[in-house]
Amino acid sequence: MLPRGRPRALGAAALLLLLLLLGFLLFGGDLGCERREPGGRAGAPGCFPGPLMPRVPPDGRLRRAAALDGDPGAGPGDHNRSDCGPQPPPPPKCELLHVAIVCAGHNSSRDVITLVKSMLFYRKNPLHLHLVTDAVARNILETLFHTWMVPAVRVSFYHADQLKPQVSWIPNKHYSGLYGLMKLVLPSALPAELARVIVLDTDVTFASDISELWALFAHFSDTQAIGLVENQSDWYLGNLWKNHRPWPALGRGFNTGVILLRLDRLRQAGWEQMWRLTARRELLSLPATSLADQDIFNAVIKEHPGLVQRLPCVWNVQLSDHTLAERCYSEASDLKVIHWNSPKKLRVKNKHVEFFRNFYLTFLEYDGNLLRRELFVCPSQPPPGAEQLQQALAQLDEEDPCFEFRQQQLTVHRVHVTFLPHEPPPPRPHDVTLVAQLSMDRTWPTMWCTVRGPYTPSTSFATWPWPRPSRLTSSSVTLTSCLPILSTTTSGRPGPASTAAPPVVVPTRRIRASIEQLGLGSRRKAALVVPAFETLRYRFSFPHSKVELLALLDAGTLYTFRYHEWPRGHAPTDYARWREAQAPYRVQWAANYEPYVVVPRDCPRYDPRFVGFGWNKVAHIVELDAQARQARQPLLLCPTLQEYELLVLPEAFTIHLPHAPSLDISRFRSSPTYRDCLQALKDEFHQDLSRHHGAAALKYLPALQQPQSPARG
Amino acid sequence: MLPRGRPRALGAAALLLLLLLLGFLLFGGDLGCERREPGGRAGAPGCFPGPLMPRVPPDGRLRRAAALDGDPGAGPGDHNRSDCGPQPPPPPKCELLHVAIVCAGHNSSRDVITLVKSMLFYRKNPLHLHLVTDAVARNILETLFHTWMVPAVRVSFYHADQLKPQVSWIPNKHYSGLYGLMKLVLPSALPAELARVIVLDTDVTFASDISELWALFAHFSDTQAIGLVENQSDWYLGNLWKNHRPWPALGRGFNTGVILLRLDRLRQAGWEQMWRLTARRELLSLPATSLADQDIFNAVIKEHPGLVQRLPCVWNVQLSDHTLAERCYSEASDLKVIHWNSPKKLRVKNKHVEFFRNFYLTFLEYDGNLLRRELFVCPSQPPPGAEQLQQALAQLDEEDPCFEFRQQQLTVHRVHVTFLPHEPPPPRPHDVTLVAQLSMDRTWPTMWCTVRGPYTPSTSFATWPWPRPSRLTSSSVTLTSCLPILSTTTSGRPGPASTAAPPVVVPTRRIRASIEQLGLGSRRKAALVVPAFETLRYRFSFPHSKVELLALLDAGTLYTFRYHEWPRGHAPTDYARWREAQAPYRVQWAANYEPYVVVPRDCPRYDPRFVGFGWNKVAHIVELDAQARQARQPLLLCPTLQEYELLVLPEAFTIHLPHAPSLDISRFRSSPTYRDCLQALKDEFHQDLSRHHGAAALKYLPALQQPQSPARG
Repeated sequence: MLPRGRPRALGAAALLLLLLLLGFLLFGGDLGCERREPGGRAGAPGCFPGPLMPRVPPDGRLRRAAALDGDPGAGPGDHNRSDCGPQPPPPPKCELLHVAIVCAGHNSSRDVITLVKSMLFYRKNPLHLHLVTDAVARNILETLFHTWMVPAVRVSFYHADQLKPQVSWIPNKHYSGLYGLMKLVLPSALPAELARVIVLDTDVTFASDISELWALFAHFSDTQAIGLVENQSDWYLGNLWKNHRPWPALGRGFNTGVILLRLDRLRQAGWEQMWRLTARRELLSLPATSLADQDIFNAVIKEHPGLVQRLPCVWNVQLSDHTLAERCYSEASDLKVIHWNSPKKLRVKNKHVEFFRNFYLTFLEYDGNLLRRELFVCPSQPPPGAEQLQQALAQLDEEDPCFEFRQQQLTVHRVHVTFLPHEPPPPRPHDVTLVAQLSMDRTWPTMWCTVRGPYTPSTSFATWPWPRPSRLTSSSVTLTSCLPILSTTTSGRPGPASTAAPPVVVPTRRIRASIEQLGLGSRRKAALVVPAFETLRYRFSFPHSKVELLALLDAGTLYTFRYHEWPRGHAPTDYARWREAQAPYRVQWAANYEPYVVVPRDCPRYDPRFVGFGWNKVAHIVELDAQARQARQPLLLCPTLQEYELLVLPEAFTIHLPHAPSLDISRFRSSPTYRDCLQALKDEFHQDLSRHHGAAALKYLPALQQPQSPARG
Repeated sequence: MLPRGRPRALGAAALLLLLLLLGFLLFGGDLGCERREPGGRAGAPGCFPGPLMPRVPPDGRLRRAAALDGDPGAGPGDHNRSDCGPQPPPPPKCELLHVAIVCAGHNSSRDVITLVKSMLFYRKNPLHLHLVTDAVARNILETLFHTWMVPAVRVSFYHADQLKPQVSWIPNKHYSGLYGLMKLVLPSALPAELARVIVLDTDVTFASDISELWALFAHFSDTQAIGLVENQSDWYLGNLWKNHRPWPALGRGFNTGVILLRLDRLRQAGWEQMWRLTARRELLSLPATSLADQDIFNAVIKEHPGLVQRLPCVWNVQLSDHTLAERCYSEASDLKVIHWNSPKKLRVKNKHVEFFRNFYLTFLEYDGNLLRRELFVCPSQPPPGAEQLQQALAQLDEEDPCFEFRQQQLTVHRVHVTFLPHEPPPPRPHDVTLVAQLSMDRTWPTMWCTVRGPYTPSTSFATWPWPRPSRLTSSSVTLTSCLPILSTTTSGRPGPASTAAPPVVVPTRRIRASIEQLGLGSRRKAALVVPAFETLRYRFSFPHSKVELLALLDAGTLYTFRYHEWPRGHAPTDYARWREAQAPYRVQWAANYEPYVVVPRDCPRYDPRFVGFGWNKVAHIVELDAQARQARQPLLLCPTLQEYELLVLPEAFTIHLPHAPSLDISRFRSSPTYRDCLQALKDEFHQDLSRHHGAAALKYLPALQQPQSPARG
């Protein structure tokens, strides 16, 4: 039998208090197991054979309560395990369950998604998530949930910044920082009418239906207000390190990674005063909290043990360093929640870590789109936009050979902005935004995207840190918010300089200068053409000037873009003229023209019809040109339309680097259906063009009937 | 209320039989719900409040039994649902559960993997799979399970061909063919000591722990032997189509996608005679079975209704056309097993198909490697090889910067041979096998691999059929069994001709001719060098002869391989000499030489140390050369070592097509750690070389110390 926690220096008063508690638990705790049937019927009694109350062992020392099953620290003698033990009555069908999570920063925002995916995978109830976030996490999570559109999930945000003053006076050494303390103020931060909530750390993973956890509220006695699992380490016993003096706690104390909170009772019991008083008093002799909120929760519980309801250990299997969790999970037939509470996270060492890692990776890699599934047992208000989308999708004909195209075109992608930590650079005049599209079949290291300026607030994707990129599969995230409208970078060289070069490289300094010189702004609208070249070399030094570029061109190291396969895509740029040009010059649209352009943010967007390979850039240039033509007509159909000149920049250039054919170009080449569908989409595009621009659209008709470019995609 | 099935043309005798059945079910069925606690303790009574026995409604017509909950066809009136209903006692902890599946052909072998993944995801018990397979499925599944090494899963194979004569006399119109009928002979085909088995169709997906299903055996009465879920369609009511005359069945009949079989009782009851008699009699008036085994099961059950135990509908939620399953799942709080029993499979139409598809895709996309997790609650004999592997992995130092390399090197990949249907061509003399390595970061359409001849029995991967390739992610399959040893094809042009070209193209006719002319075989050993060229063009017509190739070379459309970046990798091939060569010529090894070679099957294998980017081909050629040198020494350390001449083939050639840098070359370029590790591995390689070849290995030392090739990877 392992050494167990003994209350140290218990004075007579504390003993009395504990005996009172004992009496309360023995007689006052509502630990019977009458099942509440849905609809309120009384069912057969359930079975909770385990001792749920603290017991005084024969030697008279107080031993802490054995939890429902497989409790680490519970010796074989007092372990009265039953497989039907942890089966509390399920909550009423379709009851809305409330979950609160404190989440700050980029990394926690990624972590919380894995938690949410695991929770949604198993859940059968509607959920209301209460997210206490800083500005970074809010931006990420608000966008993500908005675009995710998971049915029967409601999300509320709370400003962590506004709660900071309530906890910032507490010195804290835990890696979670100030945010780690915010769980303490949830009773006042969450809506007053909210009576119960499950509070989770971002580093937990569900292995079961959260309603089973919620159902444990039913075991609370009339005065219990906090449901917790015991710590599965000896931290609070104070014998882990020399001179380590932990905060006061009952035995091993409790872990606050998973909490059931009766907010109503805590408010009634004066929780605010209670934890502040305890914390202030302890801080007189202790320098800081080591485990953030957990130290304070434990100190309060030590003083008010009647508040706590012990939860079965399987609801918070703690994989900390020195964990004793094996005593829990090796007994349990079921793991419910895994808690990565070591600062080493997945790299923590323990005998079964490979098992737990695999379980975690299951949800890290899980395609969140698959969770967009209705809880048809519990009809709910669809998320904003979801209903129209559903209707539009339902109207599609599955037998239509172009069904997949039309479906893709309607698809709303989950958007995870600033996937990796990113500080946007300070704004400058004439800022230019790179907007790039990356399909998930591209290899990761070449995947990057910096988006700033007018189109989105600020977004950055970069190479996933080696050595585990293979773990981050296409299903983990959806990288959108980038559209292939214009291509440039803010640094002249995109992405982390040390990674493999991305397909297109554009220096932007020159572009910004041109925007200024040309006086482009709200009045004068132009699509600035960045002449495109390409190299077939895998290793290539980017030329620093037009002179250098022309030298490479003459040496045959560079070609004009797609010189061998599809010169007409860029022919109107007029490379011969560009060679000599000192100033921007105007060019005319021609069929198949698909230059890279810099356009103002209010330009027409890309047509989502051309979501796969082919015609996306061509159609966009047609749109720009059609609007320009229309602006020159006496009759303006739409007052917002403005003239788009196509102006070639004399000093800017972009160089295409070799890359593999995309998935879609391969489909285009191999599938007649794909080509037929693209033609059908082109026809529909032209019909729309005619509808908007009348006879002027006739100009583009021949272009639409030409064969498709054999582009690289 | 929906129309319900009425017994048609019931004669007095049939009525009598049914009334007898009714009596039996009312009093004979062991449907009480005493819980058997693990360890044999009697627990509190469970609760099965629903009517489990057929009832005679007030109007006197017989209605079929309502199943445990949400039974389609059960009207609101007779539906006495309880959330705690379908909670039978769990089977004793760690009890071995037996599952039988009939699986034939390539497509079913892929399907069954998705089923197995869903089953393993939720299971908590050791499993024994009994797979009745044809030769194709056996080859695939035996290799897959052998390399998968999932703990606590045993697999036994049974020859479907040997069972064929027992069912081939039955005319059958179902798409599953003869194999669909084989479930009928399981009681005699499976081992005589096997008493209980769960029988599954390949098109089911688990959404719950299979032990819950196994636990339903406890509800069987003393004479019941077959547990089944009712059909969730009106097929057997005979009113789906005009002139449709179904086989006899009780009401809607039962679906045989999920069966609990008491094999012992069936054997005792003379099952063999029973079903044959029934089938023969029915076939006197019916032309064939429409639903394979299911028609016969239903006809037998109609005659012997005492055999059947009705299972809750959630254990076989049938997504057939015209399904009535919604009545089941919309009531159930839990889905247990989903059955894609429409020939349209995922393309079946129903209101909630998107939900079910998403659920299915969860397991289609699930990375089977993540299921290699120990059932640590139930210690089991590790699968063959797993223990050594585990030990080797455990000995690795996680803090070693090269940890990931060493881990990858030890990794045993799951092997799914002949992923797509493939008939190997007939063997020819001097057959040449293409062995190619494909990392999963390559786009799918360029992914193909034909392996035949000496290395593996026969393997073929090809383009995943459009339009859902994006669904087949890297986690769905592991493509190995291919090693990058030699590159050639049997057709001269690899892969489906219409897809994007793969990186390397080699015609083999010339290679086979050379093998013959040179008299290569068991005595004379050579590594035949196939001179390598490259094009930088994305669209390229493969030259048909050396003359054509040389013309392209002179025109600058082709280069010798990696002419710009790393000419020394192929310099010893001596392109100038090759130009004029009429006969094979011998060349000498030099540092960094990494030609594509054709080698006999017993040549040294690739060194798995160099699993990422760099030095795999170089090390292999060093190995070949070292063995050749050694063979020329008087003292043969190992009698199997033979001399490998490096002979350049005068007429064969290979052309490298442009592709994106691999994930690993990008890591190599961006990570100093990666480069350092590669150097460490090279040093270890040379130590091993010295150990085997003594002083002769000194020759290679300078080569090892040279800078790494900036290859394309």
